[in-house]
Amino acid sequence: MASKKTATMKDVAKEAGVALGTVSKMINGLPVSEEKRRKIEAAIKSLNYEVNTYAQGLRAQKSNLVALIIPNTNNPFFSSFTNQVEYALYKRGKKLLLCCAGGIAQKEIEYLNMAINNKVDGIIALTYSDIGNYISQDIPLVVFDRYFENRDLPRVASDNFAGACLAVEKLLEFGCRHPVYIRFYSFLPGEADKRKDGYLYACAKHHLEPDFIDVENSKNNIAVMKDFIEKHKNKDGTLSFDGVFAHTDYYGYIFQKLLRQEGFRVPEDVQIIGFDGINIFGNADDGLFISSICQPVDALAEKCVEILLSGNSSLTPSLTLLPVQYRGGGTTLE
Amino acid sequence: MASKKTATMKDVAKEAGVALGTVSKMINGLPVSEEKRRKIEAAIKSLNYEVNTYAQGLRAQKSNLVALIIPNTNNPFFSSFTNQVEYALYKRGKKLLLCCAGGIAQKEIEYLNMAINNKVDGIIALTYSDIGNYISQDIPLVVFDRYFENRDLPRVASDNFAGACLAVEKLLEFGCRHPVYIRFYSFLPGEADKRKDGYLYACAKHHLEPDFIDVENSKNNIAVMKDFIEKHKNKDGTLSFDGVFAHTDYYGYIFQKLLRQEGFRVPEDVQIIGFDGINIFGNADDGLFISSICQPVDALAEKCVEILLSGNSSLTPSLTLLPVQYRGGGTTLE
Repeated sequence: MASKKTATMKDVAKEAGVALGTVSKMINGLPVSEEKRRKIEAAIKSLNYEVNTYAQGLRAQKSNLVALIIPNTNNPFFSSFTNQVEYALYKRGKKLLLCCAGGIAQKEIEYLNMAINNKVDGIIALTYSDIGNYISQDIPLVVFDRYFENRDLPRVASDNFAGACLAVEKLLEFGCRHPVYIRFYSFLPGEADKRKDGYLYACAKHHLEPDFIDVENSKNNIAVMKDFIEKHKNKDGTLSFDGVFAHTDYYGYIFQKLLRQEGFRVPEDVQIIGFDGINIFGNADDGLFISSICQPVDALAEKCVEILLSGNSSLTPSLTLLPVQYRGGGTTLE
Repeated sequence: MASKKTATMKDVAKEAGVALGTVSKMINGLPVSEEKRRKIEAAIKSLNYEVNTYAQGLRAQKSNLVALIIPNTNNPFFSSFTNQVEYALYKRGKKLLLCCAGGIAQKEIEYLNMAINNKVDGIIALTYSDIGNYISQDIPLVVFDRYFENRDLPRVASDNFAGACLAVEKLLEFGCRHPVYIRFYSFLPGEADKRKDGYLYACAKHHLEPDFIDVENSKNNIAVMKDFIEKHKNKDGTLSFDGVFAHTDYYGYIFQKLLRQEGFRVPEDVQIIGFDGINIFGNADDGLFISSICQPVDALAEKCVEILLSGNSSLTPSLTLLPVQYRGGGTTLE
């Protein structure tokens, strides 16, 4: 193979048609015009200008800290994700700064400012606040699960669409004829919204009439589910649905309790598949709360960290979806 | 009241019988001989030398970061504690550096070194590693639950002894006559060891014959519990015990499953009380896994942070125990 000459900053300046000083400014994180930035970025990309050097130059003062913004660590999915992010960072010599934001936007913005001031090397954000407008273009940030309309940030998520299809198809495979879907959504757009799309797609594919709860998360969730059960009772006391795909394990678990309170048997009368793959006591050996489409928490955490620290945003996919898988957890017949 | 003259650094030097420069050196974190350090510390204590100034001087370079060393955040008790520590720190303008040590002593030692180098302001440690020998006298460190024989560090824990007595007395109150105790211990001494002492004390007080599992945590825990059940079967198929105090909710939950597998009913045949107060899905509204002696996680986190940041080790209690309370969770008759 012919050896390739490594591109220098001078080459980038020439290719971009800007002064060397402008390239230097940008690489050192100083402001340059949008037009010049675009030209320089294109040149860096086309010349394959040493990615790591570029990244290191851009953020010369490494803190070796990475912030994780997460609503809380009480929720077992969040706590498991936190655990794995910490591990993925540790392997790379980085330490984790934990922000349990609890939906307080101001708290999240503090961490964004730390990133701007180079007090952290980057941020992984699983946020339920609408902080899109506060995110500067320059912050190394990876978004987990959410989507900010006004920002072009790399996102990592599970393949929610495929997972929802899998849930419906597993229910059909296990003998269900009328699978319904239960969702309580937050007001922010995110990748998990595709679970509904997947449910609708699978219904269309298998010639099923879609039937679902799809309301905004509120204090009335229980009442909404009770009402749904009530309205689906046949005259003979049986139910007109026999399968449930729950948007999360949590609501699948709650729905199961409500069904049992009403005298219905799970999984004999109704089979339930949730989404997330929450382990009882956080311990994989002890099984799941309910049968579930399991998110690959380890791989998701690893991917977020890998993308965040790769240092070259021009080569980063804007969306990375990782595959999910079904695991039985007692609320299905197989 | 007579006003007291505030002690100065000069007063400390005079009282300790050392040069002013030596006091200054120590206060600025520079090395002084062990003998002089002891004298200065005694003087600071006896003169009640301005606590906050002293602390601030000693650690002039505030990082506003506090490290939490915890085995992992998968375990729901640890993740709930982590969440509350983050909150208690945030209220005080501090940020949390999370170390999921997973029993890797070397990883914990890295964080101890950060504290020595003023990269963190202090450490809260819930550790299952034997790092006692690596902890320097100067690190601001609060130990949760554990006990290092060779170090005089402030410790915070639940009142495990009283909690165990409460568990036994609740079981008796609910009609049990033969409460047994189930424990799998780690090799390091800790406050939770007092749960056994409390069980034995309550047995003695109520003229009960103690009967328990008390073996080191291993892969054989399930087999040990199965064997225990087998050995306590009467000729008529009933069990010779009717109450269980489990060292943790986790083992109470597992034991409940084993009993049900054997055809025994919980709580009708056997009532079970655990320890910790783990909420299903980390959500207090959804109740407990099992009836439990609940640790006050919020207060424990708050107390750890308060003591860590109070800055005056001479006024810090060496042991702070917080009260626990009983909550029903379906594995008891009341």
